[in-house]
Amino acid sequence: MRSLLLMSAAAVLIGAAPAQKLPTPNDIVTGAPASAWKEIPADDLLVMDLANGGRIVIQLAPDFAPVHVANIQALARGNYWQGAAVYRLQDNYVAQWGHNDSDKPWPAGVTVKPPAEYTRAYSGLAITPLGSPDAYAPGAGFSGGWPIAYSEKAGWANLAHCYGTVGVGRDLSPDTGTGGELYAAIAPLRHLDRNIAVVGRVIDGMSNLSSLPRGTEALGFYKNKAQYVPIARIQLASQMSAGERLAYEYMDTASPTFAQYLHLRANRHDDFYIQPAGGVDLCNVQVPVRKKA
Amino acid sequence: MRSLLLMSAAAVLIGAAPAQKLPTPNDIVTGAPASAWKEIPADDLLVMDLANGGRIVIQLAPDFAPVHVANIQALARGNYWQGAAVYRLQDNYVAQWGHNDSDKPWPAGVTVKPPAEYTRAYSGLAITPLGSPDAYAPGAGFSGGWPIAYSEKAGWANLAHCYGTVGVGRDLSPDTGTGGELYAAIAPLRHLDRNIAVVGRVIDGMSNLSSLPRGTEALGFYKNKAQYVPIARIQLASQMSAGERLAYEYMDTASPTFAQYLHLRANRHDDFYIQPAGGVDLCNVQVPVRKKA
Repeated sequence: MRSLLLMSAAAVLIGAAPAQKLPTPNDIVTGAPASAWKEIPADDLLVMDLANGGRIVIQLAPDFAPVHVANIQALARGNYWQGAAVYRLQDNYVAQWGHNDSDKPWPAGVTVKPPAEYTRAYSGLAITPLGSPDAYAPGAGFSGGWPIAYSEKAGWANLAHCYGTVGVGRDLSPDTGTGGELYAAIAPLRHLDRNIAVVGRVIDGMSNLSSLPRGTEALGFYKNKAQYVPIARIQLASQMSAGERLAYEYMDTASPTFAQYLHLRANRHDDFYIQPAGGVDLCNVQVPVRKKA
Repeated sequence: MRSLLLMSAAAVLIGAAPAQKLPTPNDIVTGAPASAWKEIPADDLLVMDLANGGRIVIQLAPDFAPVHVANIQALARGNYWQGAAVYRLQDNYVAQWGHNDSDKPWPAGVTVKPPAEYTRAYSGLAITPLGSPDAYAPGAGFSGGWPIAYSEKAGWANLAHCYGTVGVGRDLSPDTGTGGELYAAIAPLRHLDRNIAVVGRVIDGMSNLSSLPRGTEALGFYKNKAQYVPIARIQLASQMSAGERLAYEYMDTASPTFAQYLHLRANRHDDFYIQPAGGVDLCNVQVPVRKKA
């Protein structure tokens, strides 16, 4: 018996639902009009190739942490990560990479002590509300394709720590991190919201990080350098040749298509489900992102 | 520079905080009185040993899915899983094991078509409320050491799908699964709540599942049997000899100690944090469980 379909979003991509059925979230994605998609600028795509062949693609978020993101772009252009590695894998927490304890000099254009870009101003953001309650902030929703939390009253907004969120390692405050040491959350880590600079999210290849061996030292650091996972190269898509350049697009979270998708993510009625929740967690919505054809 | 401490619960275990500081969640755990802990019955511990040496320990939840749990106990006693394997690993979703498409006969004592134990009655449960809003249910909190969601008005309660939650694979409804095919959530999957029988949670060795290679077929199934991760044995702790028998205990979620822990998980002020959230997600509380000394 091949038990347990346990349908996931990915599953439903296999085939279109019969016509008489209500659409699934993935029916919405596959049927979305071109107008529902926005291309990610090539300068905002950070492409990390592991020496083992695995590729991880990160979308940067300059609207939320402009100085840290500019640093990361300068680090990529300056080839700062040559010889870098993934040196930490803490289960249910983070994968982290960079040079760890080296004192490699910063390339040109890096602001060594950036401001604490842990939140940004609420004003100026067009927000699609989540429509479900959030444990970490008065408000939660989406803006410019990103899952965010916010307080309209207090005037702040922040990128939410969901699966795949990328942030900047820092030491204890007042250090704010420079950008050389990055982590990807391999679990929702909302308690880190507003405590660290979030600079983007992994949009492709996340399993190349999440399936790495867990480090056995405190905090998931690998015990010795032989266990490090070497990085072959980190570059911006804008640095790639025309033939190899990557392009991705995300669903416009202000579009009617996204509103439909969001509603269906909160009210699942794919064949597998017998009881829609009537709500959805911010991190479980998963804004659609795809390679550009 | 060894940047990014990114303190986690595990981190704080390294050393006790200086006396003048407020306690951290882990200070509460390490200082908890014996009265705050409850031992898990040996019949409720399912011990899965992978052929690669990795051990996964699961606490069963007979108060929430009694027929399915009785099935699992009968399957362990009947050595049903001899020759079984982990055959599915879907990133950010589930690890799944059993015999997949075999028709191995059920051992004695198995109810082949159990009832749909997807919720249980709200009445009769002593509940410690989460104290933060939940996206999936009118109420969320803890009962008997478990994270639960509930509707007092509608009269139901269910075990929540958090990282490590174990459930029973099933085909499309009205199938309810028997218990031979099990999965562990490698991410919070709250949208599955009330749609499937939850039978327990991994309390030790979760990284032995979460770090396995992701399957490349639809739904994360491994492409061929050579990729399967063989299981050496699945047994109850009560079947183990006195010398090797495992014992675990969980923090009593009705205890004042747990109330302190819960408050501090929602209001982190470990050295790393500069902005406590003032709230916490049900799945991010992580009820303390430990090996019994």
